[in-house]
Amino acid sequence: MNEPFARLDHDRVARQGFPEVVFASGKTPAQLAAIVAEFTARSNRALATRAHAEHAAAVQASVPTASYDALSGLIRVGRLEPPSGMSRHRVAVCCAGTSDSPVAEECAQTLEWAGIDIRRFYDIGVANLDRMLAVEDELRAASVCIVIAGMEGALPSVLGGRVACPVIAVPTSVGYGANFGGISALLGMLTSCVPGVTVVNIDNGFGAAAAANRMLRAMVAAAS
Amino acid sequence: MNEPFARLDHDRVARQGFPEVVFASGKTPAQLAAIVAEFTARSNRALATRAHAEHAAAVQASVPTASYDALSGLIRVGRLEPPSGMSRHRVAVCCAGTSDSPVAEECAQTLEWAGIDIRRFYDIGVANLDRMLAVEDELRAASVCIVIAGMEGALPSVLGGRVACPVIAVPTSVGYGANFGGISALLGMLTSCVPGVTVVNIDNGFGAAAAANRMLRAMVAAAS
Amino acid sequence: MNEPFARLDHDRVARQGFPEVVFASGKTPAQLAAIVAEFTARSNRALATRAHAEHAAAVQASVPTASYDALSGLIRVGRLEPPSGMSRHRVAVCCAGTSDSPVAEECAQTLEWAGIDIRRFYDIGVANLDRMLAVEDELRAASVCIVIAGMEGALPSVLGGRVACPVIAVPTSVGYGANFGGISALLGMLTSCVPGVTVVNIDNGFGAAAAANRMLRAMVAAAS
Amino acid sequence: MNEPFARLDHDRVARQGFPEVVFASGKTPAQLAAIVAEFTARSNRALATRAHAEHAAAVQASVPTASYDALSGLIRVGRLEPPSGMSRHRVAVCCAGTSDSPVAEECAQTLEWAGIDIRRFYDIGVANLDRMLAVEDELRAASVCIVIAGMEGALPSVLGGRVACPVIAVPTSVGYGANFGGISALLGMLTSCVPGVTVVNIDNGFGAAAAANRMLRAMVAAAS
Amino acid sequence: MNEPFARLDHDRVARQGFPEVVFASGKTPAQLAAIVAEFTARSNRALATRAHAEHAAAVQASVPTASYDALSGLIRVGRLEPPSGMSRHRVAVCCAGTSDSPVAEECAQTLEWAGIDIRRFYDIGVANLDRMLAVEDELRAASVCIVIAGMEGALPSVLGGRVACPVIAVPTSVGYGANFGGISALLGMLTSCVPGVTVVNIDNGFGAAAAANRMLRAMVAAAS
Amino acid sequence: MNEPFARLDHDRVARQGFPEVVFASGKTPAQLAAIVAEFTARSNRALATRAHAEHAAAVQASVPTASYDALSGLIRVGRLEPPSGMSRHRVAVCCAGTSDSPVAEECAQTLEWAGIDIRRFYDIGVANLDRMLAVEDELRAASVCIVIAGMEGALPSVLGGRVACPVIAVPTSVGYGANFGGISALLGMLTSCVPGVTVVNIDNGFGAAAAANRMLRAMVAAAS
Amino acid sequence: MNEPFARLDHDRVARQGFPEVVFASGKTPAQLAAIVAEFTARSNRALATRAHAEHAAAVQASVPTASYDALSGLIRVGRLEPPSGMSRHRVAVCCAGTSDSPVAEECAQTLEWAGIDIRRFYDIGVANLDRMLAVEDELRAASVCIVIAGMEGALPSVLGGRVACPVIAVPTSVGYGANFGGISALLGMLTSCVPGVTVVNIDNGFGAAAAANRMLRAMVAAAS
Amino acid sequence: MNEPFARLDHDRVARQGFPEVVFASGKTPAQLAAIVAEFTARSNRALATRAHAEHAAAVQASVPTASYDALSGLIRVGRLEPPSGMSRHRVAVCCAGTSDSPVAEECAQTLEWAGIDIRRFYDIGVANLDRMLAVEDELRAASVCIVIAGMEGALPSVLGGRVACPVIAVPTSVGYGANFGGISALLGMLTSCVPGVTVVNIDNGFGAAAAANRMLRAMVAAAS
Repeated sequence: MNEPFARLDHDRVARQGFPEVVFASGKTPAQLAAIVAEFTARSNRALATRAHAEHAAAVQASVPTASYDALSGLIRVGRLEPPSGMSRHRVAVCCAGTSDSPVAEECAQTLEWAGIDIRRFYDIGVANLDRMLAVEDELRAASVCIVIAGMEGALPSVLGGRVACPVIAVPTSVGYGANFGGISALLGMLTSCVPGVTVVNIDNGFGAAAAANRMLRAMVAAAS
Repeated sequence: MNEPFARLDHDRVARQGFPEVVFASGKTPAQLAAIVAEFTARSNRALATRAHAEHAAAVQASVPTASYDALSGLIRVGRLEPPSGMSRHRVAVCCAGTSDSPVAEECAQTLEWAGIDIRRFYDIGVANLDRMLAVEDELRAASVCIVIAGMEGALPSVLGGRVACPVIAVPTSVGYGANFGGISALLGMLTSCVPGVTVVNIDNGFGAAAAANRMLRAMVAAAS
Repeated sequence: MNEPFARLDHDRVARQGFPEVVFASGKTPAQLAAIVAEFTARSNRALATRAHAEHAAAVQASVPTASYDALSGLIRVGRLEPPSGMSRHRVAVCCAGTSDSPVAEECAQTLEWAGIDIRRFYDIGVANLDRMLAVEDELRAASVCIVIAGMEGALPSVLGGRVACPVIAVPTSVGYGANFGGISALLGMLTSCVPGVTVVNIDNGFGAAAAANRMLRAMVAAAS
Repeated sequence: MNEPFARLDHDRVARQGFPEVVFASGKTPAQLAAIVAEFTARSNRALATRAHAEHAAAVQASVPTASYDALSGLIRVGRLEPPSGMSRHRVAVCCAGTSDSPVAEECAQTLEWAGIDIRRFYDIGVANLDRMLAVEDELRAASVCIVIAGMEGALPSVLGGRVACPVIAVPTSVGYGANFGGISALLGMLTSCVPGVTVVNIDNGFGAAAAANRMLRAMVAAAS
Repeated sequence: MNEPFARLDHDRVARQGFPEVVFASGKTPAQLAAIVAEFTARSNRALATRAHAEHAAAVQASVPTASYDALSGLIRVGRLEPPSGMSRHRVAVCCAGTSDSPVAEECAQTLEWAGIDIRRFYDIGVANLDRMLAVEDELRAASVCIVIAGMEGALPSVLGGRVACPVIAVPTSVGYGANFGGISALLGMLTSCVPGVTVVNIDNGFGAAAAANRMLRAMVAAAS
Repeated sequence: MNEPFARLDHDRVARQGFPEVVFASGKTPAQLAAIVAEFTARSNRALATRAHAEHAAAVQASVPTASYDALSGLIRVGRLEPPSGMSRHRVAVCCAGTSDSPVAEECAQTLEWAGIDIRRFYDIGVANLDRMLAVEDELRAASVCIVIAGMEGALPSVLGGRVACPVIAVPTSVGYGANFGGISALLGMLTSCVPGVTVVNIDNGFGAAAAANRMLRAMVAAAS
Repeated sequence: MNEPFARLDHDRVARQGFPEVVFASGKTPAQLAAIVAEFTARSNRALATRAHAEHAAAVQASVPTASYDALSGLIRVGRLEPPSGMSRHRVAVCCAGTSDSPVAEECAQTLEWAGIDIRRFYDIGVANLDRMLAVEDELRAASVCIVIAGMEGALPSVLGGRVACPVIAVPTSVGYGANFGGISALLGMLTSCVPGVTVVNIDNGFGAAAAANRMLRAMVAAAS
Repeated sequence: MNEPFARLDHDRVARQGFPEVVFASGKTPAQLAAIVAEFTARSNRALATRAHAEHAAAVQASVPTASYDALSGLIRVGRLEPPSGMSRHRVAVCCAGTSDSPVAEECAQTLEWAGIDIRRFYDIGVANLDRMLAVEDELRAASVCIVIAGMEGALPSVLGGRVACPVIAVPTSVGYGANFGGISALLGMLTSCVPGVTVVNIDNGFGAAAAANRMLRAMVAAAS
């Protein structure tokens, strides 16, 4: 076939506040490597999500500066230059349990790649409220809280009841049985009794980072 | 038809620890009245759940001592004699929001009919943790906690993390959209990260009371 | 019963950035009227959602200053004083079709009650892209875009690809058949190919308003 | 067993406008090879879908002219002779993202095997409307548009709003979490706000090709 | 509110081959009447679907030429002028059982409003194959077959195996229990073993008519 | 429209062993009356299921010999002549609770209309095994057992483990919450650990009767 | 642990008409081998379903006469002696496509093990009605028809409309996408418009054989 | 990252009656080994659930006293000291079939680790009631009955109807087809017709043990 298999979008930062990112899942290693190479050639940076080891090997063969993190599944080249004023903000990346860390790291490392300061609050789930209450003041100091949880997904409700900043909830597929691949956490977050909690897709750490980026850029713009 | 349309079970207290109760939904008022009358004639007590006003009218026409509570949907005649020693125990009937009160009352009034001491803790949902923390000591003094919640159903997890006694979670259909008639709360309770929380059917305040009755009778038996 | 059936939370503005709001559905008119009266007595303002005409009549009998809007189902008393600096921001409340207007009005009028400036962009669904493209510049001028759609719920993806500000997607139950009460729109929004779109519950215009309020307050704070 | 395990249908072109095609999934390589050999012996052509490498090896051992394409999973022998007049028509095979290309290729290569002229428009999803708008005139020149998309599946609605020809939507299982194996895209396409979009099964590139073949044959017949 | 609640699209015939149609469900009678009046004023024709009697009364009060059919739920004003050459084509509107007739009539009468010749084949479901086989020749003479069925929705598969023209399947919500509001028929049609059957939403007789219109216009264009 | 809205099938007894029966739901009273009248005129018997009172009134106006039973929703005219030898067989119609009696009566009265001898065993659910064990010998004497249950639908498994004859399980929508309109009972019956239990649709008492009729006719034929 | 891990049931033929059969899935090879050996020692016959190759190896090491068929997953030792008179009956084992043959063979070989005469009718699905119509007379000669189909599962409806004997429908998981592991076929069979079709679990060829055995034994008994 | 990836909770016995237990699934072997080592160092005991062989190897490398049971997936170090008086109680761990034994063993061995006396009653499912009736007296002697079943999950209803003590039902994913990974058993247990049966998550043997521990500690406390 002579038609292009991918049409890259180099103007997304202006239009959406975040550059185009490559979803590796379902692409062949060769397709992924070609796309990452083209992004790198054009802008000296690239980010791919949901990559496995073979993806990483193919990419690194053609883009030696690419780094790969197996826990998060991220391939990163360079980084995004944040707007000036971004350094005044910090995002709290919270998760309920250690098993949520792959999703939390996808989120945290995407934010780091985007030049955004983060702080991790891991393993503060509601089975022991004291863990969250112990860091409550730090959470209140964040500009945005991203709250990642599997199983019943109760942490965003509980945490969202304690802070006034934007709260982005990320359900994870951690659990079994009636978790149904994250549905229990997803539904719990969508039906939260705490007003103003918003939700992204199951296991979508990247999407939460992108949403936080939109919010932070609006805060930076408001201050300028 | 000459065959019986109902076969009443008068030995259930001995076998299951709780007498047979009549599920009014789907029965005609006349069927319900006949069954309640037969129970009353036999043992001077009866309990019917999920009754609406027409059910109540038919029952009260033939059993004048029957009382009806529209909020809980219960029709009650007489009461069950609890085993001696039951008065040492108290059940905490907790609910997250005022909208859960029909289910909570079905539970609370069933327990009262069974001669069990209760205490209501209503509207202590996780949108404001302070409300639950304020009554935490009283909850710890209960022999069993029944925790009723709709929406994301997070209260049993949070409360269950603060008490050591048996916790029975009751999801309710309170909510809309992704609540799906109580599924969000049900799944949340089944996948709770707090060990040892057990669950009954959506809106099943009666079932939670029956489960508490089993537990309390075992506690009474253990002490005798 | 002597225990309280409702425990009102008068400190929520400080803690969550938004006062406690009353979810009328499932409450009796009398319960609702009592709660609204108590809020009004305490702070001279109240907001109730999902109220029907009987709710409104009961409330207005005890709180004559309460207004009721049947389309949105909102009962409003007074209004919230926004933080200074809020007037610099405007929220775009967008919906795909005229049938989405009950949800859109719940959202818009909640924001108005909270002292937030809004602009309505109704009936700009993707069946005719020209309608959205015609107002694209106005959408880019908003601080937050709330995008409400039923059926396949494609508008948040399409619109979110054209603006850099935060985008809050609200699925509605408008549709039939495979809409399944809003599931098609909900799933479509959760799986949007546009990064950074966040989602609230089906038909939850109020929740979107509360989320926007969190974001705007953070923008105001960033600028001060 | 002496009974036949397969009963081949050699008259389907006359009856349905398309010959019988072999669904490889669930068949043993030996079964598949026997069926393809019989079709080839009879009509000098065969098409098998959903074949994996072992299927292909077995087929090629007995039918050396069979070709195999791993991306689409198609095994092809010979080709179908289209009705005269078919060359006046062209099908636009569109997909939203590169990850949809296995389904798109199953569709495109089936059409090519059936002697139908196609044009590929890949990676034109709604995250960047400009990509689709840039090829809009070419899409309008097609006799049929097949639109393949995963995730929220919004492309058929958006594209269907811009062309007057028949639009066949193919949901794919590309995505994760609330994609639920393609359900989000399927429901989105079924509930499209654009009238006249029809839908085939998830990942069913072959079925879309067969539907387009029915439509094109009717167009050819109308012109003769 | 000063913003428009509806933005009418008067160029749709050129762009999509069918004028904008009004989905009455969820609109107030007053909203519907205003929209229908505006369409009538502009183009002397209008079509509204899913209208109930109060909708019809409001519309007829302002547009006296509007007709209303309670079975199909259609409000019609004037009619669409079909392209010349359309009279050479006929659509077979088939349904499995008499209970499917509301959906079938929505489809048939929409086609009639669009100036398309139809023939009804009702009550030819697979419980008695002889009924369909008896009209097989007439079905083969149609340019497009629309096949409407509830319950297990088998008719499109069976009929689609006997004709070579385009087949549009419409699942209906006729049935009970495991029909689940039309899901059984919908899934059956999506997974049909007959290649080239396309599907629209449950009970979407209108959508099937619009799809047929797209196909017929392409046939007319091919012949000119 | 001039085409027939119904095509009656007068040869079904020969082909399927049971005459055509009219599914009233979704038909207008006038449609139903016309169909029943035509059947009565032709064969002096008719059976309609799922009829409500208005259906019955319309039918009885034109067919005075029609009887209507509100509990089962059946309209009956005349009866079917069973094959000679049928009187040697008896069907046990069992149900778990009194609330299942509408479904049980649809089944029992259909069998009676078909000239088949039945015996009712109602309210023998597993909450008290003694009720079923008490009638076990009578159940073993039946030629076919039809077992009707809602809630968890356990009775067919338990009863099916005690008898060797064919067991037809009928799930009912009796229950609430996680019953989901009969899904819990349906799934329970489909996954029964007792081999050889077959299942019909939720609330489908009629279908169970028709299945029993097929089996009994085969038994009668075997004996002749 | 000293308690037994299995309690074998050697009286099932008398009670249920079929001996206990071992469900291999989820058992270790050692557990399976021990159970099969015990059955063989007691009655010189055994049947295990859903066995994989490792199961078979373990069983054959301790019971050398055991045979294993990989397609059906059955392990068989000896066979069941049918009641005298069984040889007058024949079961038609039908399936829609070649991909259904694993389920069909589980059914057919179970019946053969039980001493029941069968005839296979494979690949007679509704995509080409002529295949089924060609064998219609043979199907009418069977005492029971078992009809196995995946995808939309239409064959039991179509075939059930042509025969008067008992019809047992078996949905299979053959298909993809909206097949959802057999749900489409299952729902289609449960909602069949043909009265008297009964259904067993997805892929449950064994269960269909057991159901047929119950029916045939009743026929044999009727004749004696 | 410098923040902790796990925050261990050493006070849970006091607060919840059971120490923190490690959910191995989703954790790396290294993460698990570190957590188990820290628990062992602190309290000389640890329990991990859902561990596979690589988890076990990593743990045993750093904590040599750790034992691993592959059937249950448990890693155990030391054991919990039960409150005095616990030895008066015994838990009946019942399961329906041998295939349920992994879940049953997770439950049984957790209880043993917690110093609680148990008795196993395996393979007593309802396909043969005699097996359960034979041990009924022993079941009545237990303080708590845990009832584990897959497929239709009927055993808790049947058993719960025969004992008066608390009954904890555990659905398992044993089965196939309409079992849907345990949903059939889960729904069956939630909708049980026997009052007072409570339910935990699918395959959650550990959760049932924790719930029993809460009940037993309350019984011990009641007696002291």
